[in-house]
Amino acid sequence: MSDHPSRADGARVLADLNALRTIGAYKSGVHKPTFSDAHMRSLEWFSARLPEAGLSATVDGIGNVLGTSSKPGPKLLAGSHLESQNYAGWLDGPLGVIYALEAARVLNADGAVDGWVEVASWCDEEGHFGSFLGSRSFVGAVSEADIDAARDRNSDRTMRQALESVGLAGRARVTAERGRHIGYLEAHIEQGDLLEVNHLKIGVVTSIVGIWQYRISFNGEQNHAGTTRMAIRKDAGLALAKFCVAIDDSFPDLCGPRTVWTTGRITLDPGAPSIIPGRAEMLFQIRDDDPAVIERLEARLRDMATEVTALGRVGVAVERIRTGAPALMNATFQEAIEAASKTFAAGKSVRMPSGAGHDAQVLATVMPAAMLFVPSIGGISHHWTENTADADIVTGAEVFVESCRLLLKRAGTTAN
Amino acid sequence: MSDHPSRADGARVLADLNALRTIGAYKSGVHKPTFSDAHMRSLEWFSARLPEAGLSATVDGIGNVLGTSSKPGPKLLAGSHLESQNYAGWLDGPLGVIYALEAARVLNADGAVDGWVEVASWCDEEGHFGSFLGSRSFVGAVSEADIDAARDRNSDRTMRQALESVGLAGRARVTAERGRHIGYLEAHIEQGDLLEVNHLKIGVVTSIVGIWQYRISFNGEQNHAGTTRMAIRKDAGLALAKFCVAIDDSFPDLCGPRTVWTTGRITLDPGAPSIIPGRAEMLFQIRDDDPAVIERLEARLRDMATEVTALGRVGVAVERIRTGAPALMNATFQEAIEAASKTFAAGKSVRMPSGAGHDAQVLATVMPAAMLFVPSIGGISHHWTENTADADIVTGAEVFVESCRLLLKRAGTTAN
Repeated sequence: MSDHPSRADGARVLADLNALRTIGAYKSGVHKPTFSDAHMRSLEWFSARLPEAGLSATVDGIGNVLGTSSKPGPKLLAGSHLESQNYAGWLDGPLGVIYALEAARVLNADGAVDGWVEVASWCDEEGHFGSFLGSRSFVGAVSEADIDAARDRNSDRTMRQALESVGLAGRARVTAERGRHIGYLEAHIEQGDLLEVNHLKIGVVTSIVGIWQYRISFNGEQNHAGTTRMAIRKDAGLALAKFCVAIDDSFPDLCGPRTVWTTGRITLDPGAPSIIPGRAEMLFQIRDDDPAVIERLEARLRDMATEVTALGRVGVAVERIRTGAPALMNATFQEAIEAASKTFAAGKSVRMPSGAGHDAQVLATVMPAAMLFVPSIGGISHHWTENTADADIVTGAEVFVESCRLLLKRAGTTAN
Repeated sequence: MSDHPSRADGARVLADLNALRTIGAYKSGVHKPTFSDAHMRSLEWFSARLPEAGLSATVDGIGNVLGTSSKPGPKLLAGSHLESQNYAGWLDGPLGVIYALEAARVLNADGAVDGWVEVASWCDEEGHFGSFLGSRSFVGAVSEADIDAARDRNSDRTMRQALESVGLAGRARVTAERGRHIGYLEAHIEQGDLLEVNHLKIGVVTSIVGIWQYRISFNGEQNHAGTTRMAIRKDAGLALAKFCVAIDDSFPDLCGPRTVWTTGRITLDPGAPSIIPGRAEMLFQIRDDDPAVIERLEARLRDMATEVTALGRVGVAVERIRTGAPALMNATFQEAIEAASKTFAAGKSVRMPSGAGHDAQVLATVMPAAMLFVPSIGGISHHWTENTADADIVTGAEVFVESCRLLLKRAGTTAN
């Protein structure tokens, strides 16, 4: 067999991404919550493309789409996700899915390649119903009881109701077949500005940081906003605001160099202009790749809650609802991406951690896994203005396809 | 004609209030948002009682229920409202409506009384769709365009859709007939603890404070909660929390002795745990009976917004969305309530301002108006635990009916 590089068809990749962009279009981005009509039509569109890559499509009982080959030989799994955050960007998810499809189209038709690229679109990476439910289901980490408990954060419906409404209730869930894949490769937009600022084209991901999430609840006393004197109020909303400011004051002295923390949601109960909120709640998140840092910050949160509660006006409870663990990316896979970057991106790559969570961290629990990033314009993501230059999308596709070829080649060599 | 005091039937008043409490019951309170099924059934129940008081019932095109008499002679208007805040108390509204009904039952059947009590249940005093839309409609201050613009704060439906769904669309709205009424009297729970703490039974309201309401918006930059470094964030939610704390720090030095301020609702956009909020909004309210105080506080709000915006990270906009004006209660009416308190409450009354808004402030723009308060247990209101001792409810009813008698008697004397 010859050892020529395999080149992605850049125009075809851009055309596919733009086709997915028209489904659930919102301004220059998309709105495709999990199991929305736009999401389901995207899955159908994608399933219909798989035969072109020599793959059979299966949509399983949790909404994962798997494209599999019945041929013998080494198999590399590649993919990402097709649902979006609400009113968000067109590339977060679809970029990795279309790169995977392109790799399958190019390499599965290439007689010189010994092996096959199989593809996946993991359901609900964006967490409308939970945390990586699709990929976690694939690695066997989601029970039926977990699905029973999952609810849509955009509405009051359960995941069971949503599955029923899109016709997936009762279908089997596909799980990873031990030893089938040599590993998993995923591409994604960077969602930060490191590549752009340094005029680089490819990020070779070294690790994915852990995410710790907390529900912080404030219990005061609901009362009338006109008749209750300031001196006797037990305002849960004000206590929450003070808590946010106290975090902002104290965390910088305790955190690591790359720690980030975010209050993404605040709810006052009952939330009416003429009522002093009796209860308030915030969703708070910390990300770092060093569990010792998280431990320090969480201890501070709990101390602050105890201090406020001790004042006797508003009770504060800190509940950890998600415990992250940093995931290391496979070293051999990182080398393959770097080698492919030399061929197709003039070596303009850099090794970097991922501050965002990705399905690759879940796949990494059962097989070698790795990721590559392409630049994000202005570092913007999770917003409809998210974008990447067409030329960078094409370069990324070329590096991705070549990385897959190198990994399959290496697997064939090792096997022989 | 003899001049004997008229006595309310306390058992009948309690029975009526308990009957209304079973409609839309929630724990020991009620959940009757405007135009909900429970609200509409309460209006029907009330309309069906009016003939017992010699009155004809009309439900008009905005959901006001009017009980009117065709007899000649002085007429006093009395009432309150039947919808509730969400998951709130059983007496806030119904107490005043049933007192009015009881006054009509007792006095309209009393040959010694020269005149009639007419009754009203004003729609949406609790502001699910706007600000006092029912009573403001009655005084001619609500246009068709205002109704077009009104929306349900509990859902996305318009007021037009709600009126249509309860069968009131297209009905005429009843407005005040100039000179028909000698004035308006309304009873309400205090919603504060002044009466309870001082072992008093009746509050004679001197004025209703004005309510100024603001929408304060924060414009930052939405971004990914994992990949965006702390140093470059433009977090609209954090800016909002800091603003709340800054208000709490600076208002006490600028406010009057009775000023109150409240942040009742906070919204982060998009409100997801993994997204830095790009926009945030708070509903903020100030109440006082001195417009000079409000002016000082509003100026401070605007200065603070300018200062934050000048830092260049998050833009803050302060928009006044409601402008209150204190309403003075009629002096003669206050004297009548005080006289009735001597007869039925052993003189245990006190003159006091109302920190809460009431329909009486709207009626006061077209006729003499007054209010009396009964004690609230623990000062709690706008919550399902709101309550008043049965004995205090009965005493209040007796004072209310006697106040009505004294006012009609005085009107008859003046006319003769």
